[in-house]
Amino acid sequence: MGAPSIVTLSEIQAAARRIAGKVLVSPLALSQQLSARTGTTLYLKLENQQRTGSFKERGAANRLELLSDDERARGVITASAGNHAQAVALHAARLKIPAYVVMPETTPLVKIRSTRGFGAQVELFGRSYDEAAERAAVVAAERNLVYVHPFDDERVMAGQGTLGLELLEQLPELEAIVVPVGGGGLIAGVACAVKETRPDVCIYGVESLAFPGMKRRLESDSPPSLRGGKTIADGIAVRRVGALTTPLVERYVDDVVLVDEEEIAEAILVLLEQEKTVVEGAGAVGLAALLHRRLPVAGKRVAVILSGGNIDVNLVARIIERGLVQTGRLARLELTVPDVTGTLARIADAVAATRANIIEINHDRTFSGAELGETRIELVLETFGFEHVDDVKQSLLRAGYTTEAPPGTPAESRETEEIPRA
Amino acid sequence: MGAPSIVTLSEIQAAARRIAGKVLVSPLALSQQLSARTGTTLYLKLENQQRTGSFKERGAANRLELLSDDERARGVITASAGNHAQAVALHAARLKIPAYVVMPETTPLVKIRSTRGFGAQVELFGRSYDEAAERAAVVAAERNLVYVHPFDDERVMAGQGTLGLELLEQLPELEAIVVPVGGGGLIAGVACAVKETRPDVCIYGVESLAFPGMKRRLESDSPPSLRGGKTIADGIAVRRVGALTTPLVERYVDDVVLVDEEEIAEAILVLLEQEKTVVEGAGAVGLAALLHRRLPVAGKRVAVILSGGNIDVNLVARIIERGLVQTGRLARLELTVPDVTGTLARIADAVAATRANIIEINHDRTFSGAELGETRIELVLETFGFEHVDDVKQSLLRAGYTTEAPPGTPAESRETEEIPRA
Repeated sequence: MGAPSIVTLSEIQAAARRIAGKVLVSPLALSQQLSARTGTTLYLKLENQQRTGSFKERGAANRLELLSDDERARGVITASAGNHAQAVALHAARLKIPAYVVMPETTPLVKIRSTRGFGAQVELFGRSYDEAAERAAVVAAERNLVYVHPFDDERVMAGQGTLGLELLEQLPELEAIVVPVGGGGLIAGVACAVKETRPDVCIYGVESLAFPGMKRRLESDSPPSLRGGKTIADGIAVRRVGALTTPLVERYVDDVVLVDEEEIAEAILVLLEQEKTVVEGAGAVGLAALLHRRLPVAGKRVAVILSGGNIDVNLVARIIERGLVQTGRLARLELTVPDVTGTLARIADAVAATRANIIEINHDRTFSGAELGETRIELVLETFGFEHVDDVKQSLLRAGYTTEAPPGTPAESRETEEIPRA
Repeated sequence: MGAPSIVTLSEIQAAARRIAGKVLVSPLALSQQLSARTGTTLYLKLENQQRTGSFKERGAANRLELLSDDERARGVITASAGNHAQAVALHAARLKIPAYVVMPETTPLVKIRSTRGFGAQVELFGRSYDEAAERAAVVAAERNLVYVHPFDDERVMAGQGTLGLELLEQLPELEAIVVPVGGGGLIAGVACAVKETRPDVCIYGVESLAFPGMKRRLESDSPPSLRGGKTIADGIAVRRVGALTTPLVERYVDDVVLVDEEEIAEAILVLLEQEKTVVEGAGAVGLAALLHRRLPVAGKRVAVILSGGNIDVNLVARIIERGLVQTGRLARLELTVPDVTGTLARIADAVAATRANIIEINHDRTFSGAELGETRIELVLETFGFEHVDDVKQSLLRAGYTTEAPPGTPAESRETEEIPRA
């Protein structure tokens, strides 16, 4: 079978049959709480439950299944720092096809080990995906390996499109689907599958503000190439969207919107705390757009694709801590107080009276700019929300101590409010 | 219908019909990675996906559905700091039954809000569950409310037992089930349901070392009452196991084993990182027992009940950080160095050469016990594992600096090893 020249519904249907039983039919879970918060009836498509933690297996499995015997014998190669690498490694191992993966030198060791763990040969090269991809092209030519592109390939897109068919089967009354956009492979496949079957279902893409490649491409025929920035949505940090994905997006997708880093972090935390599920930055952009009402889906039955869960736990810890600050559950207070014996005990008493928990005290007599005979104390507290922080301040004031909010403390009028649970 | 005098299979089957469609049929997910790590074929029963984040809805829903019209009109009361409170509140609201919940004053605000959010009247009383329960008994008598016990009630146990029937339906070829044990309501119901249907399936209970009430009860007719200790498995921190649950456990359960706090924290982290799912301490004890091979289930098809996901995100952040230390991904090194200009720059260079990331530097000239003319530097580093920490030490040594492991650093020979992902 030769390579199909364009993604079609029948190609996607064939892909679905081809990968059935080899890739998880991931759960589609109604979230009553997030429905209420987003003003929709919201279903979460849990692609983070795939064996390698992301939807990328769909495209990789379809692509590898379509290899000829000769191609299988030659082996495959790809460049990726993350989800695509693991997907190719796993499904190549399943099909007993040799796999070679070039990963940037900056790839976290866990991902390198995981990719190696599936039996792929891993080479570390370059400081970015682009450099790794160039190296992979060289190795592919030298060793006559089949290059498996992460998104700009019809067979990969057809594989990703199986997610669209799966959604329609799981919930025929669906009215809209929200899809993360990096290179565009997932949304191209899903949009084609869905619009060719059910043109009434809306398809929305979501990109990070740091990498708005598809949105720019839709607005202009020759968008400037992106410099890109730091983003926690590394899975969709793509400088150049696909040449093959873009026409499908133009044809089938209703709109593409953007979310910023704060919004992505907030969505990760909401999913962790309320839905008990771990999602990476790229997988959280859809919910971020819905929480901030960027999409015209009020009152509709909406599925949001949580595309992956491969997030560094280190980053999870940092997101939790920042989220606690933004919701008043971790607070920092500064006091300038007389440098006399017993001051600290009185402050601790005043805090204890409010049931806040002191987890850190910093004492600075030298550098803080306090007058001689005064000292500056910084308290880090576990609190229950902004009202509770106010209680602590009032209690300190009654004990004779005035607090100042240190720089970097979010204004209490911030829109974010304490997250109600379950 | 009067209260049944004992839990029977037919009562559990009736409960399953009664709560069908009102409580989630939670997913049972095969984990290939955890199968490999535990030497079993391991399935995770995701009760953390229930709407209130725990299995407690099964028992609460069955109990409330069985109330007479008169009892419904009077309303219900319970005492709980957590999952049972939310379960009763949600299902009482669904049935339009007034609900009164006494929670300890120390209950986290999010849980109070959530319970109130479902429409229950919440009273804060006492400093422990026991004090809250005493208060609830007083209020129940004063106001003529129906007391809904969290575990020591046949109708609650029958509700929890539906989980056993559900497991057998989802995976008829199951060979063993691992169940967290607090008061014993869940394991009593599940064990009765399973052993009366499929006596060949083994049932194992797991308790925390801090609250080994059921294990002691099985070893002695008159066990000393537990003092209890600090535990991250607060959902099973029960001082006195049930009078009604115990005979069922004695009759049907194959064994009860214990896990310690470190093991529970490790299991929470494994589930977060590899399975992308958030589980509370009580919900992680079963996996902890399996990871440490406490149960005779080698080679078997095993379901472990992840009973709930209501964990404070603050605690999640602390578990992640501790886990990073124990796997060599967060490291602290101490150096005693000459107090001369340029030392810090040379140290930073030596660290940078290994691609470790310095996240904190502490400098102590005064209190560290270093000689005059020397200073003590503490580095906190993000690293890739213990081998990488060794690389950093070697690099520092080549630059002329010797490192000492500060107190509290885990020995590198620790059993725990870097967690391979996906």
